[in-house]
Amino acid sequence: MIDKAACVLSVDAMGGDDAPAMVIDGLALSVIRHPKVRYLLHGDEARIVGLLEKHVALKAASRIRHTPDAVAMDDKPSHALRGGRDRGRTTSMWQAIASVKSGEAQATISAGNTGVLMAMSKLQLKTMKGIERPAIAALWPTVRGETVVLDVGANVGLDERQLVDFAVLGEAYARVILGIDRPSVALLNIGAEEVKGTEAVKAAAADIRESGIDMNFEGFVEGVDISLGKVDVVVTDGYTGNVALKTAEGTAKLIAHYLSSAIRRSWTAQLGYVLASGAFRTLRERMDPRHVNGGVFLGLNGIVVKSHGGTDALGFAAAVDLAIDLAGSDIQNKIASRVGEIKKHRPMTPLERLEAESREAIAP
Amino acid sequence: MIDKAACVLSVDAMGGDDAPAMVIDGLALSVIRHPKVRYLLHGDEARIVGLLEKHVALKAASRIRHTPDAVAMDDKPSHALRGGRDRGRTTSMWQAIASVKSGEAQATISAGNTGVLMAMSKLQLKTMKGIERPAIAALWPTVRGETVVLDVGANVGLDERQLVDFAVLGEAYARVILGIDRPSVALLNIGAEEVKGTEAVKAAAADIRESGIDMNFEGFVEGVDISLGKVDVVVTDGYTGNVALKTAEGTAKLIAHYLSSAIRRSWTAQLGYVLASGAFRTLRERMDPRHVNGGVFLGLNGIVVKSHGGTDALGFAAAVDLAIDLAGSDIQNKIASRVGEIKKHRPMTPLERLEAESREAIAP
Repeated sequence: MIDKAACVLSVDAMGGDDAPAMVIDGLALSVIRHPKVRYLLHGDEARIVGLLEKHVALKAASRIRHTPDAVAMDDKPSHALRGGRDRGRTTSMWQAIASVKSGEAQATISAGNTGVLMAMSKLQLKTMKGIERPAIAALWPTVRGETVVLDVGANVGLDERQLVDFAVLGEAYARVILGIDRPSVALLNIGAEEVKGTEAVKAAAADIRESGIDMNFEGFVEGVDISLGKVDVVVTDGYTGNVALKTAEGTAKLIAHYLSSAIRRSWTAQLGYVLASGAFRTLRERMDPRHVNGGVFLGLNGIVVKSHGGTDALGFAAAVDLAIDLAGSDIQNKIASRVGEIKKHRPMTPLERLEAESREAIAP
Repeated sequence: MIDKAACVLSVDAMGGDDAPAMVIDGLALSVIRHPKVRYLLHGDEARIVGLLEKHVALKAASRIRHTPDAVAMDDKPSHALRGGRDRGRTTSMWQAIASVKSGEAQATISAGNTGVLMAMSKLQLKTMKGIERPAIAALWPTVRGETVVLDVGANVGLDERQLVDFAVLGEAYARVILGIDRPSVALLNIGAEEVKGTEAVKAAAADIRESGIDMNFEGFVEGVDISLGKVDVVVTDGYTGNVALKTAEGTAKLIAHYLSSAIRRSWTAQLGYVLASGAFRTLRERMDPRHVNGGVFLGLNGIVVKSHGGTDALGFAAAVDLAIDLAGSDIQNKIASRVGEIKKHRPMTPLERLEAESREAIAP
């Protein structure tokens, strides 16, 4: 276990709508909170050097690795990886991940293109033994605190085995990041009854129950239960999880709109608003998506944190905090041991055995 | 077209957590707004008669049809329809739908078990020509007004043809209920790009574009766009739509919780709250899910409105308003002509032709 305060964080300085300026400003906030962390900045050296001029502490804590290219926000994963043998490898994103692979850094962060980041992470870091696909996990604010929700966008269409894998990944993540001993886990469904839902969701619930794994599994929850914090980990596929996450964002915007138009209606309401401005500030802060910025790629041999592309320095710094928390934790070992445990309980299917054998055959 | 003010509404008086008292109280609110509407009340005659005693106007506008049985909220669709040849037929729910089938009533409403209501409606009313499965459509409050979202729970796992059908159903519904001439329509997806999303969603978008149908089709929207009112009709499958709807409900509850705890923190905030109480009342009313209560079953040969089972008299009255609006509209003809139009543009698959032929062969 690495000292959290003294880890090395590899940064894709060119990822995000307002990169690299937003990235450098975000790191400048982070360095105040984590003075011992060292940053490896991958990107356009000339621009980064210029931006670091006004941040003395960050400059001292950083090393720059020049890369000539950057992944565009609208690049397709296939496009960014194809076209010229070394095309992808000359980008800041590829090199930021490479620093984790080489062991030089304990985690990497990027606010760049999600699809390309996932593809490059899979190519370089590979999925952990026993895990078929990585997931993106988000921390969702709830009435009770925070809940881990996964997958929120990496995988469209999952079978039951992948959902079971995600339950294991999410549970291990909740242990580390929420500090809960036996996190409660549930599958997202459209009713608490066993008869409803997709075949994959129903089969995954049966698999977890029959696997004999020691997990605080509570069956199904509905969409309303996420924000109510009914369980610590909510498992779903990337399509549904992404729709849920963005629907919640839209609902928060709608209510903010209602609130501001209701208050503008009368002068007593406006006066009341002034008197209650502290309360509204608190409300705004709690509703501010920047504070819960940062999706973690779970199931890879290395820690990759994805910041929202459209965030600002404050939001990026929140994602950096998350990456540093994870870099200083033993999350990878915890996940690996939990994955090993559940795989022990569940015999391999013939296809899984074949895949495992071919993986071993081509391993370097 | 029937005079909206003078239609007959068939009511499942026994459906809902607090039925029949909640149902009768809700109808008593409705009769004030629609004095010419007549109500056919299906259920336990003795109990209904007792409840009507305190509602003179409603009593005068109602006729009671006694039924000995009621569908329980946790009945499975198969269970409610099986077991004794006439088991389902002796329930208030079955008889309420039967009144629409016979033409005695122009619409029916129930706050009972959704799955059973859908199964009984399909059995009695049958799906419209050219439509494979009915959908449940909800009206979703947005920054711009209201958006039709379907399906919100009837169908798990749809292929592209069914999604195209739902686009047609939702568009016709928006024309009637929102009074929009050329409603904009989009499919719910996890990114605006054509490369993302499930195969069915991508294929449905291509089908609509290639069909040549005259529809204001805007491609894909994301979860955040629903509450922002980006389009008038959002089409998705029942699993995703239900998760989205309930996630929005949970988010609203979370924000209400944040707001009340923020206000309780200081006396100035509490004073401000008192001064702005009118504004907060407006906010609460706009966030009140009872005002948008009522899901419509689209694609059947008859109008069926589903009220939330846990609602109160106010919420039930809102669903009754919706049923009366639809009963007095020519929505069924509008949908039928739009369905005919799109089917004209799209040749039948061999399977569709076979199904159509077998449907005609067994028709009475």
